Amino acid sequence: MSIPVPPVPSFAPASFTLTSVKGLRAAGVRAGIKASGNPDVALLVSDAPMACAGLFTRNHFAAAPVSRSRAHLEASGGLVRAVVINSGNANACTGAQGERDALEMCERVAAAVGCPLEQVLVCSTGVIGVKLPMAQVRAGIDAAVAELSADVEAGRRFLSAIMTTDAFPKEAGVRVGDATMAGVCKGAGMIQPDMATMLAFVATDVDLELPALRAGMARIAATSFNAVHVDTHTSTNDTFLLLSTRRVPAPAEWEARLEGVARRLAWLIARDGEGATKVTTVRVTGAASDEAAKAIARHLAASALVRTALFGNDPNWGRFVSQVGNVAEVRQPLKLVCRLQGLEVFRAGEPTPFDRAAAAKAMAQEDVSLEIALDEGPGQAVLMTSDLGYRYVQVNAEYTT
Amino acid sequence: MSIPVPPVPSFAPASFTLTSVKGLRAAGVRAGIKASGNPDVALLVSDAPMACAGLFTRNHFAAAPVSRSRAHLEASGGLVRAVVINSGNANACTGAQGERDALEMCERVAAAVGCPLEQVLVCSTGVIGVKLPMAQVRAGIDAAVAELSADVEAGRRFLSAIMTTDAFPKEAGVRVGDATMAGVCKGAGMIQPDMATMLAFVATDVDLELPALRAGMARIAATSFNAVHVDTHTSTNDTFLLLSTRRVPAPAEWEARLEGVARRLAWLIARDGEGATKVTTVRVTGAASDEAAKAIARHLAASALVRTALFGNDPNWGRFVSQVGNVAEVRQPLKLVCRLQGLEVFRAGEPTPFDRAAAAKAMAQEDVSLEIALDEGPGQAVLMTSDLGYRYVQVNAEYTT
Repeated sequence: MSIPVPPVPSFAPASFTLTSVKGLRAAGVRAGIKASGNPDVALLVSDAPMACAGLFTRNHFAAAPVSRSRAHLEASGGLVRAVVINSGNANACTGAQGERDALEMCERVAAAVGCPLEQVLVCSTGVIGVKLPMAQVRAGIDAAVAELSADVEAGRRFLSAIMTTDAFPKEAGVRVGDATMAGVCKGAGMIQPDMATMLAFVATDVDLELPALRAGMARIAATSFNAVHVDTHTSTNDTFLLLSTRRVPAPAEWEARLEGVARRLAWLIARDGEGATKVTTVRVTGAASDEAAKAIARHLAASALVRTALFGNDPNWGRFVSQVGNVAEVRQPLKLVCRLQGLEVFRAGEPTPFDRAAAAKAMAQEDVSLEIALDEGPGQAVLMTSDLGYRYVQVNAEYTT
Repeated sequence: MSIPVPPVPSFAPASFTLTSVKGLRAAGVRAGIKASGNPDVALLVSDAPMACAGLFTRNHFAAAPVSRSRAHLEASGGLVRAVVINSGNANACTGAQGERDALEMCERVAAAVGCPLEQVLVCSTGVIGVKLPMAQVRAGIDAAVAELSADVEAGRRFLSAIMTTDAFPKEAGVRVGDATMAGVCKGAGMIQPDMATMLAFVATDVDLELPALRAGMARIAATSFNAVHVDTHTSTNDTFLLLSTRRVPAPAEWEARLEGVARRLAWLIARDGEGATKVTTVRVTGAASDEAAKAIARHLAASALVRTALFGNDPNWGRFVSQVGNVAEVRQPLKLVCRLQGLEVFRAGEPTPFDRAAAAKAMAQEDVSLEIALDEGPGQAVLMTSDLGYRYVQVNAEYTT
């Protein structure tokens, strides 16, 4: 059978990548973990300990590298010299051997860099339930150490070595005076056997103390990687690291700029979501609380019915509104207003007369806005979600066994 | 583009339908509400007041007939003489006019039957946001009153007049000695503009007092209509009525038999779920509590990733297990065992070696079992869910505008 394949967007490389950040060197090499022969071991090293805040999956089946990195961050007090990543194998559901392998990856990097073990973090992404091919991993780490470089091309090789099923590379960056904020990530939903866990690394040379970095990270994650919804699945390896090499005095807007980089990366993940043709930003305002707003936004973003309507460019107010009607936190449903691409489609319990053809046309964009305005309080939330089309079914039902 | 259409199952008519229940007469007529010309007004009348327990949607945008029926059931103390239903129009999101129309439908039936207004209930199903064509509805009610009959064909006409996008009629029944339990329902997910809200009517001539009927209904609904999952959407019109004409002494097993009828009807709804090819029964055992078990079952049944794997006959333990790993209530993930069609695929944090081809073949059935066994307590839950394939996307993205 033939399924229409949505065009893969081609994004121009960002002006900046991780190695644009002063103090960072990177590498990405082909170690032979991936059957495809694509790059699969990446290494990021700082000349001096960086401040680092980390956000990890809460899945009960968190992979060995996740628990290892979490423990190292705690033991080191948030000081990090290096991050080693392999793609092609998630080292998840691999038992005690998986724990030993994650430890050995850190030990090998610590020895090469000459730093305490706990200043090395490790991430893995790829197939789950299969032990790491450690001969290849060891050789890959050694090769990556040898190729560490601060030039842009090394940053790009790092990025290519963390990708699995990504349809395109994901990077973003910005410069403010002397300061650089830049990040890369991988992720496109969860695709078994390549469990495309989300990995994101955002770094800056701005001088941030650890408490400021940690506080900023919580806010940044809330509007970026924690506000993106491809499917309801949190995976075994999800990791977001925020790093500061502390070289440049912090400009006032550092947090907003870092947030911008993180949001762009999160948008790129949603855009790459398993056959997605667009990213829909769900905005809820006027809810009783931020929590209520988030519950409403999640109900919409998680709904297969809503997401197929978005795929079909269908201004289907009934689906959107009745899905909001399922959220217990809603108190005054008759005050709800629903807007699609700015066009009002529902108010006061009844549909607003509107031109369906024009609305459908307005939805046929890469960026779609779905807005729910209540009149119950100051609560608001924003979520980005991908649509659900034929390719999603194809990718998830057919490409797996 | 061509999408493979799963074969629509052909179910032999059940041996019993609503009019098999002593004391019930029914009718189904063509009133012209549906553009297709199919039957669209149904009427169920009892010779004497029936005991009735009702379960209604909790959606904040509950349709006018839902709030009207809820109020009548309360005012009448659970005594019901008649239920009038129209299909083709849900009378939802129709404002004050919708309220007046729902009331008028009840008034017209009450006058014809000769009973108090509050002993008449009303249900509507179909397109939302459009006012009822009351001229057709009035004529339809009059025609239905004239055609009321206790024969089996009248029961079948009743059933056909409540259907909207159903691919096949749904009925079930059983006889125990002199007693009959029988039911019909409609529903196949939510399809806009025909919001295929679930309507279910299960009746018996067993003599049940209202308190017993109400208590039984809560338990029956929990394992049937509240345990079925097509998409996460509760709609504006969902209604389940359990009716007793009180003609025959109650056999000891009355509740189990009624539950069997309701479960079969719920299974038929899942089987008809928007392009579904199978019904998967998710069983969770050994959870800390029934609530924890239910949370796990819902996480699995609601996941687009899980449902596409089921469509693809993919024994994808990684998806099933990592989805369970997202449920906060799980305490001892390493004790989890996952079985597919009885075949163990995961235990103690790692995949169990199994024959993928044989597992895939075992999943290519109309009835699939997905089992999660924990070792944390006595909690258990059962949910029925449909799979998610190309036809789901086609139905929900393309057939709407």
